[in-house]
Amino acid sequence: MTDTDTPVRLHAVDAPGQPVVTPELTELYRGFESELLVPLWTEIGDLMPAHPHPTALPHLWRWKNLRELASRAGEIVPVGRGGERRAIALANPGLGGRPFVTPTLWAAIQYLMPGEDAPEHRHTQHAFRFVVEGEGVWTVVGGDPVAMRRGDFLPQAGWNLHAHHNATREPMAWIDGLDIPLQYQLNAQFFEFGRDALSEGERTTPERSRSERLWGHPGLRPIGATSSAPGSPLLAYRWEHTDRALTDQLDLYAEGFASGTIEPGHAAVRFTDPRDGSDVLPTMRAEMHRVVRGTETEPTRQTGSSVYQVFDGSGVVTVDDHTWSVTRGDLFVVPSWSTLSVRSEASADDSDSGALDLFTFSDAPVFEALRLHRKA
Amino acid sequence: MTDTDTPVRLHAVDAPGQPVVTPELTELYRGFESELLVPLWTEIGDLMPAHPHPTALPHLWRWKNLRELASRAGEIVPVGRGGERRAIALANPGLGGRPFVTPTLWAAIQYLMPGEDAPEHRHTQHAFRFVVEGEGVWTVVGGDPVAMRRGDFLPQAGWNLHAHHNATREPMAWIDGLDIPLQYQLNAQFFEFGRDALSEGERTTPERSRSERLWGHPGLRPIGATSSAPGSPLLAYRWEHTDRALTDQLDLYAEGFASGTIEPGHAAVRFTDPRDGSDVLPTMRAEMHRVVRGTETEPTRQTGSSVYQVFDGSGVVTVDDHTWSVTRGDLFVVPSWSTLSVRSEASADDSDSGALDLFTFSDAPVFEALRLHRKA
Amino acid sequence: MTDTDTPVRLHAVDAPGQPVVTPELTELYRGFESELLVPLWTEIGDLMPAHPHPTALPHLWRWKNLRELASRAGEIVPVGRGGERRAIALANPGLGGRPFVTPTLWAAIQYLMPGEDAPEHRHTQHAFRFVVEGEGVWTVVGGDPVAMRRGDFLPQAGWNLHAHHNATREPMAWIDGLDIPLQYQLNAQFFEFGRDALSEGERTTPERSRSERLWGHPGLRPIGATSSAPGSPLLAYRWEHTDRALTDQLDLYAEGFASGTIEPGHAAVRFTDPRDGSDVLPTMRAEMHRVVRGTETEPTRQTGSSVYQVFDGSGVVTVDDHTWSVTRGDLFVVPSWSTLSVRSEASADDSDSGALDLFTFSDAPVFEALRLHRKA
Amino acid sequence: MTDTDTPVRLHAVDAPGQPVVTPELTELYRGFESELLVPLWTEIGDLMPAHPHPTALPHLWRWKNLRELASRAGEIVPVGRGGERRAIALANPGLGGRPFVTPTLWAAIQYLMPGEDAPEHRHTQHAFRFVVEGEGVWTVVGGDPVAMRRGDFLPQAGWNLHAHHNATREPMAWIDGLDIPLQYQLNAQFFEFGRDALSEGERTTPERSRSERLWGHPGLRPIGATSSAPGSPLLAYRWEHTDRALTDQLDLYAEGFASGTIEPGHAAVRFTDPRDGSDVLPTMRAEMHRVVRGTETEPTRQTGSSVYQVFDGSGVVTVDDHTWSVTRGDLFVVPSWSTLSVRSEASADDSDSGALDLFTFSDAPVFEALRLHRKA
Repeated sequence: MTDTDTPVRLHAVDAPGQPVVTPELTELYRGFESELLVPLWTEIGDLMPAHPHPTALPHLWRWKNLRELASRAGEIVPVGRGGERRAIALANPGLGGRPFVTPTLWAAIQYLMPGEDAPEHRHTQHAFRFVVEGEGVWTVVGGDPVAMRRGDFLPQAGWNLHAHHNATREPMAWIDGLDIPLQYQLNAQFFEFGRDALSEGERTTPERSRSERLWGHPGLRPIGATSSAPGSPLLAYRWEHTDRALTDQLDLYAEGFASGTIEPGHAAVRFTDPRDGSDVLPTMRAEMHRVVRGTETEPTRQTGSSVYQVFDGSGVVTVDDHTWSVTRGDLFVVPSWSTLSVRSEASADDSDSGALDLFTFSDAPVFEALRLHRKA
Repeated sequence: MTDTDTPVRLHAVDAPGQPVVTPELTELYRGFESELLVPLWTEIGDLMPAHPHPTALPHLWRWKNLRELASRAGEIVPVGRGGERRAIALANPGLGGRPFVTPTLWAAIQYLMPGEDAPEHRHTQHAFRFVVEGEGVWTVVGGDPVAMRRGDFLPQAGWNLHAHHNATREPMAWIDGLDIPLQYQLNAQFFEFGRDALSEGERTTPERSRSERLWGHPGLRPIGATSSAPGSPLLAYRWEHTDRALTDQLDLYAEGFASGTIEPGHAAVRFTDPRDGSDVLPTMRAEMHRVVRGTETEPTRQTGSSVYQVFDGSGVVTVDDHTWSVTRGDLFVVPSWSTLSVRSEASADDSDSGALDLFTFSDAPVFEALRLHRKA
Repeated sequence: MTDTDTPVRLHAVDAPGQPVVTPELTELYRGFESELLVPLWTEIGDLMPAHPHPTALPHLWRWKNLRELASRAGEIVPVGRGGERRAIALANPGLGGRPFVTPTLWAAIQYLMPGEDAPEHRHTQHAFRFVVEGEGVWTVVGGDPVAMRRGDFLPQAGWNLHAHHNATREPMAWIDGLDIPLQYQLNAQFFEFGRDALSEGERTTPERSRSERLWGHPGLRPIGATSSAPGSPLLAYRWEHTDRALTDQLDLYAEGFASGTIEPGHAAVRFTDPRDGSDVLPTMRAEMHRVVRGTETEPTRQTGSSVYQVFDGSGVVTVDDHTWSVTRGDLFVVPSWSTLSVRSEASADDSDSGALDLFTFSDAPVFEALRLHRKA
Repeated sequence: MTDTDTPVRLHAVDAPGQPVVTPELTELYRGFESELLVPLWTEIGDLMPAHPHPTALPHLWRWKNLRELASRAGEIVPVGRGGERRAIALANPGLGGRPFVTPTLWAAIQYLMPGEDAPEHRHTQHAFRFVVEGEGVWTVVGGDPVAMRRGDFLPQAGWNLHAHHNATREPMAWIDGLDIPLQYQLNAQFFEFGRDALSEGERTTPERSRSERLWGHPGLRPIGATSSAPGSPLLAYRWEHTDRALTDQLDLYAEGFASGTIEPGHAAVRFTDPRDGSDVLPTMRAEMHRVVRGTETEPTRQTGSSVYQVFDGSGVVTVDDHTWSVTRGDLFVVPSWSTLSVRSEASADDSDSGALDLFTFSDAPVFEALRLHRKA
């Protein structure tokens, strides 16, 4: 590399807080450039702001539009080895066109046509699936077929071999969440192809996966199971349990008892690793929130970024100075230190009488592990 | 205290490894006594054996006999403030007549007549109840009524107020496990009386306790529940879950998969704190084991002591050089470093076709926390 | 075992809270005895007191007396294989003549004559040595000779082979602390003899042990040292460091800064495992306290028991309703939940001008690990 | 935002693994763009490589050049509020001219002229200073003046107020390490100005900082100090300790004992938090390595990135296919999964006879906390 192709470009400008532009300063900056150096004093405002100035922007994606484009992709884009998945990622408008919904998180709609297979592979990126509608696809994780149904949350920690198959006559869509941007920034990724075809034994769809039979009993640890690999060994958190837990919290509150609700009319559960109660994946937190119709949540903000998907109901969401009416399937992003509040209310075309159910995932475990978590 | 009432008594004897008995030695020993001193060299064999010489002995109590005596006590011994509980403790024959089943553990049969109340109190001793037969009693823990039914495991960490009520027309018996001997040795105990009567709202018997509605959903943490008190916040581990988990393990094994079983034909679950997967109580481990008919478990030994109760089925138990045929309800103790093996087999009067289900509790968390755990 | 030799003896008495004595009750108690059962209602006052009623009593041992008796033992009791150590243990007057200073702790004066060897062995009991006077003995732990000098604290976690040698022409005394009573109650002990003689290479007395060269640099971890055995890998905490740390705390306080002192005029350091900052041994906490002349410490009490030895200075100690004037070497015990306060003051024959330095050890890690710790 | 200014740009190309370019595909891609979507199949090779393809490149900066440019900056660029520090950062040639030495780490030379002050501020970014030459500057952290001398490592966890002052008649240079890029990517940063001038009491240079007097005694914890803020409370790790620890390791190895060395001729210590033995800062690991002259280290690679500075001696460094001769002060970067080996040898102008001492820092705690650590 010579002076002329150094990637460093410094512009001496007369500005408050900057040194006076002189020929000596200009010469100094040329010296910096040729040695691949950048002074702090030209960059400090960007690098060390008074509080987070998130690069990601608040944004809303309509499920209806995602669904249509994914369906169209289902018709004309094949799925198979190389492309690996028919997954279409949300690209935050503040992140330069990269398929990153936040600086750390990936969110995509994945779409599988009847009879299709998404081939087996594994990667260090931690992942999960969440099903807002439909059913019939199963994911085979480490040889264990896991059925996917509306409301189910299906984590899959890094380096587990996995494949998908649509065993029905209908296409199916769901969302994928991964820590692709985080691992991309960290240069931490490994990837391997798996087998090209699943065995016959894996092409069945049991009601419960083996992981659920082993780990899905409340408070009961299988003594002989000794895995200590990162991430939850439980591969499916079924909607019937999630729904019941939320209903119980709200009922307990109504009966006048300590209930685990976050605030009146706002129940929530976190998906956790049954081995130790920690977050379900080392880099991602996932939760389901229920906001009773008519309730408006207290505005809160925290470091780290989140993605929300409306699972059921409708309402109005405010993120900093953005306000959106949202309904089933809509996805929105809450950047670091942005203020979020949610109001649960009927929409014009909302015939259901129920609450606003919000699925959310975030990078909170990263912030907590690195002692960077702040809340207000 | 004068020389004459010192509790120390030293006897100089001519024995291998002991100093030669001389007038000087005798005088020295008198000096030791008057200063409340004891030399190591007279005690080392007892205090520092090559391996544990447990003071507790292997022993079996027959449920039939316990049940009869408890029933008789139900007739003639009232329950109420002062005595607090109609609990009758197993006194290990090696522990000098004290009501200690092992040096750290208390095990008792508790008996409550129709309509009776055991008054509210609390203590630092950690406790649980396990129900081998009957139903109809509920325990109110911190104001939360918890129904008790056959097969249920009901932990109750120290310092929670609790009372019992028998709401039926039948007497009911169950076993209590506590760490009374441990806390007695450690001089760690606190105790307080609670209210003399429960409120009307506490005199109902809901199907599920509030604790189960809050904490009993697999892998789901109620985000707003922030208790960090010691011991599980889940107050009931229901038989239906335990039974299903054991069945699942054995089925998975039969299907050829990693199953969590301890060995072929031997499934087991541990009752854990859903907040962090640790033992359900800080000083006691509790587990349910299922041994398939015809299976004999591998002999094992470990430091620390355990108590077992036959929940169902029948078989033959070997603890060191003791062998007992056991059937429903029978209790036996496995002292520290004693070797245990179990064979599941039909008994003469055993009409059921099933497995041998063994409930067990131990002081393993103490040994693990203090790094004193050894296994062979 | 027949009815006649059951260890259980129950006496039906007419007393408040006890069932009325009737022939039926007496018969019931005979039944209990023959089945090795003890009811809670006759025992609850003893087992479940309102607060700890420690079995150990506050007591003081004078170093002068211990020293004289140990010296006398040095003359007439040989040290060698079998007896293993010329250690003379403090027997708390409340503990029935057993060589237990508290229910969990052992404290002994050990004495080694010029040229004597205490043979190599190992045991699961955790141990330490503390030197109140003299020098010249070294302890070989796992082949590493560790010099012992006044003020040094020398931990030695369970299952490390160790021996002592007095390389000087003077006898030497020090105190040993172990968790013998705890492991005795728990039936957790293992013991093995080591070699009968040390190698020549082990018969030198380096200024610093190998453990200090590896682990004795503040905040610096040797990357290639990977031991995870229980207890500190650092085998000597030298007085020069302890003294300086205490001096620094008091100076910082005098200069007006946050200083780590516990209260004005009362500095203290805890001996910790440099790998993780935890207590130096899994079952024992050890600390050095310095109380400036004229200072009286705030009375405090906590669950768990402690032993103190005056390392330097003199003063007045109050434990519950016992008050003692103490001077160098004196040892006293603080039972569970007993209130302790210390006043540092000159004694009649105290020529030094300095503070009262108190070495102390306790079973606090046991209480903390088991969540039984309370403080007032 | 309209279709025309979407940041997403997708180009349909005929390539292996990509869908055939058709008008329908092009239309689909236009739809993706307008909805801010990006398919996985066009990005997977970049986002999910078989192993890390680090964006950072191996690179070497010569201390001589850094020193000269910093000195020149000392003459013409003032230091004060706004620019805050005369720090000049190493810009990795693979990171687009940003002042990031790796994707997570910042490394800069900081330069302070005689009598200059760098004003007080604080920020969430974790930081340290390491001194390769000179002395005379002290850093005031939370009011505690910390002298800086050759070989000292001075950590400073996030959110501590700090300022620098050069109290001598000579300029002084040192290196700063921070996690600026990591916190920039995560949008986690907070920043506050402190006071504009230090108090007189802070303008002294004690031999030892208060932090060292409180926390710098090996294995001794000040009991009354209760801070649990992230990062080490010890603000200076002095060269005399580091040097001695390394010397001891090599001596122990030479004497034939377990020594903590990583491999023959290669000693190393990690700077740790004395409270718990964890890494000195939550996001950065720092170590000092000593490679004996003539030794070549085993090639190793790991996920995560490191920066090295030659503290003393000289040698030859190989990072993947780059090889550099290095001498005192030179800095080089080892990207994620790049292979590093070092040979210690005399250079032409190297008059010292000693070993190659390498200071290094990395983002290893991030990788370990997130379970992304791999090593080969």
